[in-house]
Amino acid sequence: EGFGERKAKAERMFSLMDGFLKNDPFSLQKDILHHVEYTMARSRFSFDDYEAYQALAHSVRDRLIERWHDTHIYFKKTKSKRLYFLSLEFLMGRSLSNSVINLGIQDQYAEALNQLGFEFEVLAEQEGDASLGNGGLARFSACQMDSLATLDYPAWGYGLRYEYGLFRQIIVDGFQHEQPDYWLNFGNPWEIERIHVTYEVKFNGTVEEVDMNGEKVKVWIPGETVEAVAYDNPIPGYGTKNTINLRLWAAKPSNQFDLEAYNTGDYINSIVNRQNTEAISNVLYPDDRSHQGKEMRLKQQYFFVSASLQDIIRRFKEAHNNFDELPEQVALHLNDTHPSLSIAEIMRILVDEEHLGWSKAWNIVNKIFSFTTHTVVAEGLEKIPVDLLGSLLPRHLQILYEINSNFMEELKKKIGLDYNRLSRMSIIEEGAVKSIRMANLSIVCSHTVNGVSKVHSNTLKTKTFKDFYELWPEKFQYTTNGVTQRRWIVVSNPSLCALLSKWLGTEAWIRNADLLTGLRDHVDNTSFRHEWKMVKRLNKMRLAEYIETMSGVKVSLDAMFDVQVKRIHEYKRQLLNIFGIIHRYDCLKNMDKNDRRKVVPRVCIIGGKAAPGYEIAKKIIKLCHAVAEKVNNDADIGDLLKLVFIPDYNVSVAELVIPGADLSQHISTAGHEASGTGSMKFLMNGCLLLATADGSTVEIIEELGSDNLFLFGAKVEEVAELREKGGALKVPLQFARVLRMVRDGYFGDKDYFQSLCDTVEVGNDFYLLGSDFGSYLEAQAAADKAFVEPDKWIKMSILSAAASGRFSSDRTIREYAERTWKIDPCQCPF
Amino acid sequence: EGFGERKAKAERMFSLMDGFLKNDPFSLQKDILHHVEYTMARSRFSFDDYEAYQALAHSVRDRLIERWHDTHIYFKKTKSKRLYFLSLEFLMGRSLSNSVINLGIQDQYAEALNQLGFEFEVLAEQEGDASLGNGGLARFSACQMDSLATLDYPAWGYGLRYEYGLFRQIIVDGFQHEQPDYWLNFGNPWEIERIHVTYEVKFNGTVEEVDMNGEKVKVWIPGETVEAVAYDNPIPGYGTKNTINLRLWAAKPSNQFDLEAYNTGDYINSIVNRQNTEAISNVLYPDDRSHQGKEMRLKQQYFFVSASLQDIIRRFKEAHNNFDELPEQVALHLNDTHPSLSIAEIMRILVDEEHLGWSKAWNIVNKIFSFTTHTVVAEGLEKIPVDLLGSLLPRHLQILYEINSNFMEELKKKIGLDYNRLSRMSIIEEGAVKSIRMANLSIVCSHTVNGVSKVHSNTLKTKTFKDFYELWPEKFQYTTNGVTQRRWIVVSNPSLCALLSKWLGTEAWIRNADLLTGLRDHVDNTSFRHEWKMVKRLNKMRLAEYIETMSGVKVSLDAMFDVQVKRIHEYKRQLLNIFGIIHRYDCLKNMDKNDRRKVVPRVCIIGGKAAPGYEIAKKIIKLCHAVAEKVNNDADIGDLLKLVFIPDYNVSVAELVIPGADLSQHISTAGHEASGTGSMKFLMNGCLLLATADGSTVEIIEELGSDNLFLFGAKVEEVAELREKGGALKVPLQFARVLRMVRDGYFGDKDYFQSLCDTVEVGNDFYLLGSDFGSYLEAQAAADKAFVEPDKWIKMSILSAAASGRFSSDRTIREYAERTWKIDPCQCPF
Repeated sequence: EGFGERKAKAERMFSLMDGFLKNDPFSLQKDILHHVEYTMARSRFSFDDYEAYQALAHSVRDRLIERWHDTHIYFKKTKSKRLYFLSLEFLMGRSLSNSVINLGIQDQYAEALNQLGFEFEVLAEQEGDASLGNGGLARFSACQMDSLATLDYPAWGYGLRYEYGLFRQIIVDGFQHEQPDYWLNFGNPWEIERIHVTYEVKFNGTVEEVDMNGEKVKVWIPGETVEAVAYDNPIPGYGTKNTINLRLWAAKPSNQFDLEAYNTGDYINSIVNRQNTEAISNVLYPDDRSHQGKEMRLKQQYFFVSASLQDIIRRFKEAHNNFDELPEQVALHLNDTHPSLSIAEIMRILVDEEHLGWSKAWNIVNKIFSFTTHTVVAEGLEKIPVDLLGSLLPRHLQILYEINSNFMEELKKKIGLDYNRLSRMSIIEEGAVKSIRMANLSIVCSHTVNGVSKVHSNTLKTKTFKDFYELWPEKFQYTTNGVTQRRWIVVSNPSLCALLSKWLGTEAWIRNADLLTGLRDHVDNTSFRHEWKMVKRLNKMRLAEYIETMSGVKVSLDAMFDVQVKRIHEYKRQLLNIFGIIHRYDCLKNMDKNDRRKVVPRVCIIGGKAAPGYEIAKKIIKLCHAVAEKVNNDADIGDLLKLVFIPDYNVSVAELVIPGADLSQHISTAGHEASGTGSMKFLMNGCLLLATADGSTVEIIEELGSDNLFLFGAKVEEVAELREKGGALKVPLQFARVLRMVRDGYFGDKDYFQSLCDTVEVGNDFYLLGSDFGSYLEAQAAADKAFVEPDKWIKMSILSAAASGRFSSDRTIREYAERTWKIDPCQCPF
Repeated sequence: EGFGERKAKAERMFSLMDGFLKNDPFSLQKDILHHVEYTMARSRFSFDDYEAYQALAHSVRDRLIERWHDTHIYFKKTKSKRLYFLSLEFLMGRSLSNSVINLGIQDQYAEALNQLGFEFEVLAEQEGDASLGNGGLARFSACQMDSLATLDYPAWGYGLRYEYGLFRQIIVDGFQHEQPDYWLNFGNPWEIERIHVTYEVKFNGTVEEVDMNGEKVKVWIPGETVEAVAYDNPIPGYGTKNTINLRLWAAKPSNQFDLEAYNTGDYINSIVNRQNTEAISNVLYPDDRSHQGKEMRLKQQYFFVSASLQDIIRRFKEAHNNFDELPEQVALHLNDTHPSLSIAEIMRILVDEEHLGWSKAWNIVNKIFSFTTHTVVAEGLEKIPVDLLGSLLPRHLQILYEINSNFMEELKKKIGLDYNRLSRMSIIEEGAVKSIRMANLSIVCSHTVNGVSKVHSNTLKTKTFKDFYELWPEKFQYTTNGVTQRRWIVVSNPSLCALLSKWLGTEAWIRNADLLTGLRDHVDNTSFRHEWKMVKRLNKMRLAEYIETMSGVKVSLDAMFDVQVKRIHEYKRQLLNIFGIIHRYDCLKNMDKNDRRKVVPRVCIIGGKAAPGYEIAKKIIKLCHAVAEKVNNDADIGDLLKLVFIPDYNVSVAELVIPGADLSQHISTAGHEASGTGSMKFLMNGCLLLATADGSTVEIIEELGSDNLFLFGAKVEEVAELREKGGALKVPLQFARVLRMVRDGYFGDKDYFQSLCDTVEVGNDFYLLGSDFGSYLEAQAAADKAFVEPDKWIKMSILSAAASGRFSSDRTIREYAERTWKIDPCQCPF
């Protein structure tokens, strides 16, 4: 076979793979039905909506793959510096609508399906959520991926492909029960299994010192091996061809021969035993402290870190002969401390495997990491027991000790023998359980330490990481979180999306949220305000239908929809909200009929999951149901007050609830919420906030003006003082009365609620519910007052949305890219 | 939306799904490359042979799906009686070549690939084996599926989709080590995941008696639930459009809420614990007795049975309102006793769920089951401890007791109070461990009990099931096993295939193996014989290359390739073969140079897996390697004798080895092999047999004439008498000498081999190696003598192939269909 013939064959192949899929409705129909028949293997006589959704999704996937390829070939060609965003959690939610919108073929699909007798929206409802995360941090990661793609940054996300996502919350008799979320049971068309992209991840074993060319080097002899397989999730940008990658790792049994493992004489049992270790990527840990010190959690972290770094270094080495350029080519971002074993791992690779020498390696490592912490209080910081780490990753423990010892030496030179401070700043925590402080490790090794809001950053500098700030003030920055308007307006609120484009005269706000300020120009226009009101009403209707389906409660559209949806946590103070509702109920009961007529009707909506081991949070959920049971069935009250708990709150539920909310509550005890992104989503959707001045709310106030939201409660700087008062703190009578009602069994389950009541009893009320109750009620009264002036309310609503541009994750990502990661956009040509 | 519009939409959809895929090379190329780009998600710049294979396989799968659909729609339309073939094991091997050959588009694919610069054969080598079985029984199931499809029978196969197939055998230092076969790690394009075809399978719990409309009925309250998901494997027939289904079940976690399971307070641990129970379909049990009484094995059996019967009954009920027609519509075949819990399960369904009444149900059940046993000796029959079964399947145990008690009553009426016989025939075995005898259960409830060869059937009637034969002589039949010529000639020996079609003047033998007798007409034609010889030489060359790659041993093509490949078992007497080789080596060493020149050079090839817990079999493997080490490295010997062990023997290896064999050994102690299908594959490929008169060999002799193979050893009827002689049995001196050489450490590992030698010491030699050794050597000498007369040898080779038609699984299936299952062909029109 000559060269000419080989060339002709290759050309034939190239020409056959040269075209792009067409997006006219007829081509889309052919593609969808092709997938019905050959991918789903269903015949035209029998396929249901779910199979139609799957076929539809596969046809979208085909189009994502085309862009994915071209994007990555272009990144490679241009040799752009890449950002690798390492996060153990991504709350992606659904992908279908988001993908067709970002691909710009939403209308074509809708038409194509309609001609076949299907509705896009109906099929889209078939999709389940990808819930690979717990809450804010994880959803923020997802928003950032969308912004990175849209802004054309050459970025990769890395995470874990949990076989079971965040538990599904079901409510039985008002109690939360957790069920595994087998989200992959029915296939996932949004991922591409990369059967050839696998890496071995090793655990356990011993470290030996061997002589290599006269030098002593450490060699880790691992005891156990699992294989990490890549699953790629294409992330399409909006208004660009760029489609970046979120690569998630799953554990698979290693195909390497492992003679030892099966040498037990009982073949079946050795296989069954191995299955457990091969399941390390299966379960997402719920966000509570109970995983601290758990071996499986540590294994997950290292599994994630090891696979990701092998992949990153392989890619770098494809184009480079040495590591000098690593800092110019690679930015590694640690999303919280969960991936911070990366530091030890990359030192191990550079020193043990690439033989770079410690200080050369250290100089490189110091230039590539940036770190964002989402934690406020020191007690919340992650620690790993030394014993556990030493047995699972013996070589890494040595490296961590060496990093710390070098750091301590350097520190002594700078601050002298201040042993208290040295011991606070040490990466190793002495004590009953000797531990590695993952935050200290991350700070020492990162060039930048990011807070997630201005307030948060101040807390980090003045309290949590004060010692470090004084040493390295230049490392400390903040970049306020944001949310993507593509997901939170375009996908979830199509009516508002159309209205915004109409009145702004452009769709450009979808890529440039700053343009939303333009809404301020129309706030006095009555027809604009009328349309705005109609959009809100439509969304309330949608939400009311959902509520009726889920809970059987019929709610009035004229009532104020007052929403608090987020993880259930004492500091987020859902209990304050419930106490407020009890108070309102109590007032209503004691009113005469005439007075009742003047009351603004409310539908109070609460949703969120409690961590499975978090008893107090679970009691809050039960109390919410107990109160709802009483209130909703009280004929005296009728539509004046309803309380609804929305079960299994997740991204899809949020997409439905947020556009339908009139008022939303963000009422954490000041100083406890690092940023909070929920408020931003509500803001974007023209929902008024009732909030404490905590986290990013402080910046929202700057942007919006304090007249346009309902603020209350102690300020960050007042909290410590209030706490010191202890039993001497003054608490309003109404609070005591509400607490007494619960204690006395007014809502049943008297015994069960005592321990919950104890947590807010004067002298024990760490989160200051009692102390803030008075101003909370005032803020609620102010909200009521505003609501009865529809014009005023609508104006506030419009101004809220107009102020939300600054809280787009596009702004967040641009700041990170320019200040922290030093990466440039790289737009793949169409 | 009116009726007209809906109709127009449906018509649009129907017309878009109306066509069939085209099979011209250009269309095939487009389809393959489409799968490269969109299914494998690779770009034209980077895909390797494995990905090209996967894409190719997906394009074949598309075509299988089309035929699969049309076939099943046609079966449904014609309301044909279906056969359901229940087997815990199917050794399918590879699918690609078999599929394109049976689809009749082999040449088109070869050309399409060639034009793109690929070779079909190279890509085909990328496929791994589907090894969901241990040995003969499992491969026979696969051959039967091919025949059922080709002969247009409306049949379904049911089995388990083991996540890990039969262990991979690797040899280290001559010792066998077992490694799990993660055959699904890289995806399986030959299966269709039916995410919607799922059934709940229940275990444990209690049985309660409840009152229903005045009648007491038993209700099983199960304790645990797993979900069975269907994976369909299309089985295309040859020369027909019919493509039947092999449905394999995999266990998946149930999506049903299970509050209890997660109520332990430790969410993560409850998930991890549940993973074990959800893994029940993961591991194929190796074929040893060690799984007897294992809970997991019993769970697998019931999981398989329950899912299959739910599926079968659902399908039946779609077209019927009651169960009267079940025996006219459904034939259930039990492939050995592994699926025999079906009997209790279907009684449970009919009585407990469908409320049919015991005797009505029993009358139906008695008409639907047939049973094939593959076992010879009573000790080999499956038993399940009553305690285990009662705890896992409490209701089924009650049903089994009731079946047995009715049977015992009936039996007493017929044979009186012969308590010995009653106790032998009882389904319940009393004793230290009270057990269920699965074979007795199967015989009692089946209308037909099949043996797998004439000899086997006689043994069943006169020994194993004598009591039952005397009671129900009409139930006992035999149907000699067979093998499919599509796999064993057309796929694996394309040169022979072409030669056969040329000289027979037709390809019709591929569907009608009886035509192979036509070869006898040409046996005296020298050019035919010459071509025959060339084909064999080509295949020997292929095999020699494989041997050199695998073991580094270079073998001479002029040597006789003497093969024994099958599971390693004492009764199959690989040890006799090895002892013969040692003897040959010993003779050669003691010969002078001139005599050596007259010796026929041999390449002895042994392959096979030992069950992981079967120590003696593992020692045989080690001995084989020890002898090979000595012989192959002895410069005195050179090409006169080589011994090669082929590791990890499986279907693909068989496809390579069998066509290249001159002589093959089937040398089980007479009366121990139920049928044996290996010999048939060799016969078809013109390989001469060296064999004992055991199993189906007896029928091969009838067909072939004893002159055309090398027979030796004690006959079935002589074995018992020989065994009784015990220590008085005469053993040739050569045998004692060989045994002594091993014992004395001539091949090393002296101590290790003592216990192996003990098993064949006079007085202990249950499998009569010593007693048969003399006639074995004579048969080997006769083979040598024949080999030096090439013309004679080739004639015998041709006559072997000419005699193989009777041993096509097409004949087997036709006999079963007509006599046992009473099903008719149902050919889907093109």
